Amino acid sequence: MPQVRILTEEDLRRLVTLDMAAIDCVEAGFRALSGGEVVMPPILSMAIEAHNGEVDVKTAYVPGIDSFAIKVSPGFFDNPKLGLPSTSGLMILFSALTGQIEALLLDNGYLTDIRTAAAGAVAARRLAREDASSAAVFGAGVQARLQVRALCLVRPIRRVVFWARDVARAEAAARETAERLGIDARAEAAPDVAAKGADVILTTTPATAPILMADWLTPGQHVTAMGSDQHTKNEIEPACLVRADLYVPDRLNQTRALGELRTAIAAGLVDAGAGFAELGDIVAGEAPGRRAATQITIADLTGTGVQDTAIASFARQRADAAGAGVNFTT
Amino acid sequence: MPQVRILTEEDLRRLVTLDMAAIDCVEAGFRALSGGEVVMPPILSMAIEAHNGEVDVKTAYVPGIDSFAIKVSPGFFDNPKLGLPSTSGLMILFSALTGQIEALLLDNGYLTDIRTAAAGAVAARRLAREDASSAAVFGAGVQARLQVRALCLVRPIRRVVFWARDVARAEAAARETAERLGIDARAEAAPDVAAKGADVILTTTPATAPILMADWLTPGQHVTAMGSDQHTKNEIEPACLVRADLYVPDRLNQTRALGELRTAIAAGLVDAGAGFAELGDIVAGEAPGRRAATQITIADLTGTGVQDTAIASFARQRADAAGAGVNFTT
Repeated sequence: MPQVRILTEEDLRRLVTLDMAAIDCVEAGFRALSGGEVVMPPILSMAIEAHNGEVDVKTAYVPGIDSFAIKVSPGFFDNPKLGLPSTSGLMILFSALTGQIEALLLDNGYLTDIRTAAAGAVAARRLAREDASSAAVFGAGVQARLQVRALCLVRPIRRVVFWARDVARAEAAARETAERLGIDARAEAAPDVAAKGADVILTTTPATAPILMADWLTPGQHVTAMGSDQHTKNEIEPACLVRADLYVPDRLNQTRALGELRTAIAAGLVDAGAGFAELGDIVAGEAPGRRAATQITIADLTGTGVQDTAIASFARQRADAAGAGVNFTT
Repeated sequence: MPQVRILTEEDLRRLVTLDMAAIDCVEAGFRALSGGEVVMPPILSMAIEAHNGEVDVKTAYVPGIDSFAIKVSPGFFDNPKLGLPSTSGLMILFSALTGQIEALLLDNGYLTDIRTAAAGAVAARRLAREDASSAAVFGAGVQARLQVRALCLVRPIRRVVFWARDVARAEAAARETAERLGIDARAEAAPDVAAKGADVILTTTPATAPILMADWLTPGQHVTAMGSDQHTKNEIEPACLVRADLYVPDRLNQTRALGELRTAIAAGLVDAGAGFAELGDIVAGEAPGRRAATQITIADLTGTGVQDTAIASFARQRADAAGAGVNFTT
């Protein structure tokens, strides 16, 4: 009888943490994306306006990984009024050889948090200066904190400044970061002051209008903008893309429609057909990353199904090794 | 703690059978589709050519149903060599109010079989003559048999003829049908002879070139073509659509791309922008069905996410009533 392994969020939090192995696993996914043999269909997206909700489905087949994940991510934005989190969801792992279900990962979005933060580390590893020691973080939520942790795994960060519309939340994020990572972390009320002099700037918000301005950028900085994943979102002023020496999308056809590139195209600053090497091309050595300490670089991350397939397979391997989860006979 | 109900194929086969309640549930889904308030995004489809596989994801939000299903349908066509079925998959039921996972229906495609056959019955109920007593079935697989069973629930069918490329399989389908339904059922080696004089013709194959010809059709016949759900498939000669008095798609934008309408448009016989009332419009009374005993009618069924949401919610209700399945705390 077919067996399906069921893993809960609790199992997955124990099995998969934000560490170098998770970053390497996501990086390998990006490398495969460069080869042109990955199959990654457009995101299925359904809005349920009557209940202020939406659901996205992502998937990708990555040659060399014998499984593929289908990730379902609901976001229902009135949930906090009911005492429920806005986002939830699961990943389902299938055999890429037979299509049989292998595992149900009832992660409530946890693996997405990890693979998203890991992508930030992959971008920083290729684009931030090797001696980057300071970071400015826009936002104070789960991703703000995870992106800093991921960055600290790949760059010798000593000082972090958080900016958020709600200063109290920025202060809480700074306190947690200082305690957890043992580095200097504080909140800053003025976003331009936060950005000034930071070696790395991370934008992690659901902003729909720019919160990072082009004339705040200074030579040598790297920006990872990971908040925009919808055609309504925008974190960085379109002129930032012109000011940068290197703009790197995670997936060009997605950033044109959903990322920071969308608003730069709409503003007439970038040609709609302009080509850019993707993060995976840089990982694969097919395109250069940062070439000088004075360059300004921008990574535009919208999130890819490849990351989901990579992290879900990684979680399953760890579960196999640990004998974790429940085997369910179907 | 959140609870997810897990139902296996065995549970679901016990809870949901092809009966009038299942047909009515799917019909209600089609009726909702007519109202314009259903949200049904395009199908997500991914081909894994390296392993002769594909996976489709369908969903729909139906106002009035408090849950929505996401259905994942893998098809891996080398599986029989491994002793595995080609198709498998599951449905996941989410709250349409909060996006929380409610149930995992590990049906291996069983509910798809049922909702697909039920749609055939909905079409026959609106389009076949009320006194239809004979049927010709092209194909001899699971859907061939289920479509006949569904048809017999809504029309007084006494005689069925099966045609299939493999006559032995047609004979097996006829034997099973005769035993199960207590009606006259036989195989026929010549497709034109099978079609001749049948009140209802059901095409249920994965054909990629026509197996039913226009000049075989006679006044009063109804055809349900349910095999084509890909842009490579085609069961009925494009001229059939011109010969018919009434052509009814399940979902027009899908049949233009994936159904029999696709080849009729490609052949230049139907305008690409031509409008047709959908099956749901007829169910809702917004458009007429059959208007005369001599009309030739065609239903073109590609399969809709609305059917999946309808049957999955129906299965969950029955499971609730029966206390079936396992509650899994996440």
